[in-house]
Amino acid sequence: MRDVAIIGIGQTEVGEHWETSLRHLALRALQGAMQDAGVTQVDAIYVGNMLSGELAGQEHVGALVADFAGLRGVEAFKVEAACGSGAAALRMGYMAVASGLVNLVAVVGVEKMTDALGPDTTSALALAADGEYEAAQGVTFVALNAMLMRRYMYEYGYSHQDFAPFAVNAHRNGVNNPYAMFRFPITPERFATAPMICDPINLLDSSPICDGAAAVVLAPAEAARALSTKPVRIAASAVGTDTLAIHDRRDPLVLDGAILSTRRAYEQAGVGPQDIDLFELHDAFSIMAVLSLEAAGFAERGRGLRLALEGEIGISGRIPVSTMGGLKARGHPVGATGVYQVVEVVQQLRGEAGANQVPDARLGMAQNIGGSGATVITHILERME
Amino acid sequence: MRDVAIIGIGQTEVGEHWETSLRHLALRALQGAMQDAGVTQVDAIYVGNMLSGELAGQEHVGALVADFAGLRGVEAFKVEAACGSGAAALRMGYMAVASGLVNLVAVVGVEKMTDALGPDTTSALALAADGEYEAAQGVTFVALNAMLMRRYMYEYGYSHQDFAPFAVNAHRNGVNNPYAMFRFPITPERFATAPMICDPINLLDSSPICDGAAAVVLAPAEAARALSTKPVRIAASAVGTDTLAIHDRRDPLVLDGAILSTRRAYEQAGVGPQDIDLFELHDAFSIMAVLSLEAAGFAERGRGLRLALEGEIGISGRIPVSTMGGLKARGHPVGATGVYQVVEVVQQLRGEAGANQVPDARLGMAQNIGGSGATVITHILERME
Repeated sequence: MRDVAIIGIGQTEVGEHWETSLRHLALRALQGAMQDAGVTQVDAIYVGNMLSGELAGQEHVGALVADFAGLRGVEAFKVEAACGSGAAALRMGYMAVASGLVNLVAVVGVEKMTDALGPDTTSALALAADGEYEAAQGVTFVALNAMLMRRYMYEYGYSHQDFAPFAVNAHRNGVNNPYAMFRFPITPERFATAPMICDPINLLDSSPICDGAAAVVLAPAEAARALSTKPVRIAASAVGTDTLAIHDRRDPLVLDGAILSTRRAYEQAGVGPQDIDLFELHDAFSIMAVLSLEAAGFAERGRGLRLALEGEIGISGRIPVSTMGGLKARGHPVGATGVYQVVEVVQQLRGEAGANQVPDARLGMAQNIGGSGATVITHILERME
Repeated sequence: MRDVAIIGIGQTEVGEHWETSLRHLALRALQGAMQDAGVTQVDAIYVGNMLSGELAGQEHVGALVADFAGLRGVEAFKVEAACGSGAAALRMGYMAVASGLVNLVAVVGVEKMTDALGPDTTSALALAADGEYEAAQGVTFVALNAMLMRRYMYEYGYSHQDFAPFAVNAHRNGVNNPYAMFRFPITPERFATAPMICDPINLLDSSPICDGAAAVVLAPAEAARALSTKPVRIAASAVGTDTLAIHDRRDPLVLDGAILSTRRAYEQAGVGPQDIDLFELHDAFSIMAVLSLEAAGFAERGRGLRLALEGEIGISGRIPVSTMGGLKARGHPVGATGVYQVVEVVQQLRGEAGANQVPDARLGMAQNIGGSGATVITHILERME
């Protein structure tokens, strides 16, 4: 097995791109990554995307993106794992390069959620849940997370306001990210009075519906030095799954898929949570950030929220999260998110995170979650000295 | 890079499964393949599927299938490349085992097209075409193929009736396949009078809308002997792409994606068309079978139809195609088809094809096509002596 490195990154601004189609978004991110890598050709393109068929009227986006980028002929597929699609595509690219079958791979995450055809976006997002046991009963994705949040509050005695530090931290970091959708700070007071979406989840607990694309270029690590001045090694790539339906789980407040995924990643990289300098977690909702911190070993059960309350999730905290705004402030174009997370970890490891730079970041982790924890994909990235 | 072998196969009957859901179909095929391989656990499951979101109200089928099969926790994704999704998932499984990252992989192709929610199936299938330049203009998938067929007839002076041998051959072979949807022979006369769907494509030029699932289990070739009495080696796995929109191609009658895909496969396996004992081609429409034969090097341009007219595509012909009924008679549950093709090649190489056995088959090729030739995935399989 060959070691694999990231030699280029690209991204579009996350937002409402009413004038830009799915293929144009993908193109911009892909061209950015290839330019950053200094390559004009790749051997394969794997596209992470969840809802192109339902919302943009287009399946078969692998070959579409390849052709639209002037790379007609190269291997190309779409990979889907709900909101985990982006990291799933990276996992596929990683395996392709690791196998020796292909050398240069582009991984593109793209989602176009505004300007939607067909069903409304909330119904489309519910396709990530169990269709027969959850979605068909009328439970939306926000509602599932709301039930988890309420249960967490009840079980461990927290108030809704205790979750404020996640939104405050994400928005603070989003201010300095030119690609973020929300570039304004918020106060705990604003959090307290935000409109309710699905009690107890309010507008500031929730990531936005938006459009965006991000991309990375992968190469064998041995060749990466010649191609890039700042290559980043993929020290681990691991996946864990769980039931789609929350009622089928051992315990609704324990993300077994995330526990499996991070344990496998730590083993592959030969590290533990204490070695991780920053953690791009999947804060689609505040409650998911909390459960992820616990599953990944940064806090005991019921104590994930405490880390935030104690100020340990900021840039200079014990475990910085959402360092470029996270899903909450950078935005969450679902199938693209996993690639955005990895792009941001690369920015940190390269020392290119500007005002949000985590000092001397050497090891960063990105964790992308599909559904309410049914697919969890973890990548640990390492600065190549 | 490790060599990879297929150690188990499974499939459901193709047909209208009104009483069986998507997850149940996938389960039956997966259990069949695992039983055939004699394994009770796998490390990863890759699901080939095109339209679960649009027609079955369910995305995120990777984790769903893993859990439903009692394999909660294992790595799982969905791979999509329109009608080429099944072979795309196999390609992913092949890379995963080849890389050394995982050992036992299950590849499941599944599609549920009857009992559809949401848009009608014809609109959903059009998502394989270019959404902006083809589908949005009202061109269905059959219509695109009808234009290709008419152009072929005009360019090379064939009549519609000249295409009859493809349907006759497929139906003849389907009779002996217990998993085939159509198990009755047809005559050239019946072909001549079949109802027109989209001139010149009639009902017998066209594969049916149906449900089904097929699966294979992969293992490192070095371990395959210990696990299976009849392992089959994947001698080549290759992909070629082209534009989605037909008008953008160099020549509408030349499948450049298929030329690339087969050339890469021949190179990897170190063989040529003359070495192939049977060819499971993508006969979604008769015209696609013709163009595939030409692109894969079995006939010169404009002469693919001649092979059929000369009786060379039958079981004892120069290049047997659709040996278990093909997409035409076995059926074409779109995202499952690529895996069905591979299952059937394995049956041939194991000598388990019954009345349809190609004598002493040693090397078989399966070619799965997404869209009207935009994604072409070719696998060459070899009997392990």
